[in-house]
Amino acid sequence: MVRVEMLTVGKELLIGRTLNTNAHWVGKRLARLGTMIKEITTIDDDLDEISSTLKTVVARSPDFLIVIGGLGPTPDDMTLKGLAMGMGVGVSLNRDALGLIRAHYAGRGMANAVITPSRRKMATLPRGATPLRNGTGTAPGVRMMVGKTVVFSLPGVPAEMKSIFAESVEPEIKRKLGPLHRKYVTLKLEGVFESVLAPYLVTLLKKHPYAYIKSHPRGTKGGVSKIEVDIAVVGEDRRAVDGEGVKIAEELTEMVSEAGGKVKSSRGLTTGGRR
Amino acid sequence: MVRVEMLTVGKELLIGRTLNTNAHWVGKRLARLGTMIKEITTIDDDLDEISSTLKTVVARSPDFLIVIGGLGPTPDDMTLKGLAMGMGVGVSLNRDALGLIRAHYAGRGMANAVITPSRRKMATLPRGATPLRNGTGTAPGVRMMVGKTVVFSLPGVPAEMKSIFAESVEPEIKRKLGPLHRKYVTLKLEGVFESVLAPYLVTLLKKHPYAYIKSHPRGTKGGVSKIEVDIAVVGEDRRAVDGEGVKIAEELTEMVSEAGGKVKSSRGLTTGGRR
Repeated sequence: MVRVEMLTVGKELLIGRTLNTNAHWVGKRLARLGTMIKEITTIDDDLDEISSTLKTVVARSPDFLIVIGGLGPTPDDMTLKGLAMGMGVGVSLNRDALGLIRAHYAGRGMANAVITPSRRKMATLPRGATPLRNGTGTAPGVRMMVGKTVVFSLPGVPAEMKSIFAESVEPEIKRKLGPLHRKYVTLKLEGVFESVLAPYLVTLLKKHPYAYIKSHPRGTKGGVSKIEVDIAVVGEDRRAVDGEGVKIAEELTEMVSEAGGKVKSSRGLTTGGRR
Repeated sequence: MVRVEMLTVGKELLIGRTLNTNAHWVGKRLARLGTMIKEITTIDDDLDEISSTLKTVVARSPDFLIVIGGLGPTPDDMTLKGLAMGMGVGVSLNRDALGLIRAHYAGRGMANAVITPSRRKMATLPRGATPLRNGTGTAPGVRMMVGKTVVFSLPGVPAEMKSIFAESVEPEIKRKLGPLHRKYVTLKLEGVFESVLAPYLVTLLKKHPYAYIKSHPRGTKGGVSKIEVDIAVVGEDRRAVDGEGVKIAEELTEMVSEAGGKVKSSRGLTTGGRR
């Protein structure tokens, strides 16, 4: 099992100014790849916080740590300095990163753009780190090894984060995962309460210990309780994965009818479909 | 300084199924009270994860830990069991919690509702815990002491979380904070790039080390760069807090004009206003 953790950095995430859509987006992308983020930590743009959190996370030896936020030119963008502190290395001007920043301005017809101190800051990386091309903005992403963990540091601007993730992060995680298949089924139920459904789900989870089965209450309409159940199965053999997903859905459908409810609609039951 | 941490529990937050709006809502409420969440940890509904994360958090001795999610009747709702495991105590049926659940059904005209095993599960709390009334749903909130940390555990359904937060969590944090005032100012800038603004913000932060000053790039329209700057000041003396907020805004306005840009509009500059 490949362990992936995430660290999102920024006061705006802690004071309810910005919703953490970056963690949501990356979580969904990784789930589709067939893995799951094990833990997301969100902290302030603060040297000590970043440094000590890096140490805490790396002590759990994840395969990958994706750090998002705090790479910009402003003084409160502390991420790279904080990571370097946590790794016990210095920071220095990285020629490759500076080249990427120059290329960014050249691509916008500003070949002679002055490398101001703020721009130089974005090219100042922990020693030993590799910059990653940012196809959308100025600040390069960064890749570095901390112990046995591959640490990616990406800017918090969603378009830039997504661009670097797709170009440099996802391919490396995918290689590490090897070939995996995933089957998703969603059933929309009516006429059964979650507390009535619960013992059936216990039975189902016991029979299929590696499947993901989760109920989401969707309120009551005209006295009729509505619930959605998500089923996900992951594995190396596509036919076995698809088969188990369909089987769980069939067993659940039978249980729901036993409990006096019914399956109103479903998604993902046909095999071979993409999503 | 009062330290508040948050722990949000649920696979749906890790796989991009659900945006963490609960953390966002609580973060905003606490920021308005005059404090800030220091760290948000998001993990799976898993006994070992919950138990070990509780230990890690409590080792930092926060004053408050707000745990959200995993209190429902379904088998994957592991939060209370996981917290008990982390505290090294058992769980047992709590008569007060059972009373709250009975009262919930009685209030809906179901005074004779059967206490099913699923409902009993929601009344099974770590030993020594106190249940908190849920004005909106079935599962009670829970309050417990772990070392010197007050731990609140709330359901993940937003309406229920908000109701228990407002009734039981916020008042206790507010008492601990004592009387504090907060001044917020937002300036909308035009015609200055973030990398040009950056050194001015360094100067400003050095002059006002306890203020929160943060720039948010808002893109470029017709070649004109747009930036919003948030300023927040917190303190015990309302007049001093208001005065410092206004002063920072004035100094920044001068800097922006020096840099060739201008302040297009502002919010929060008049003193005595509420937000």
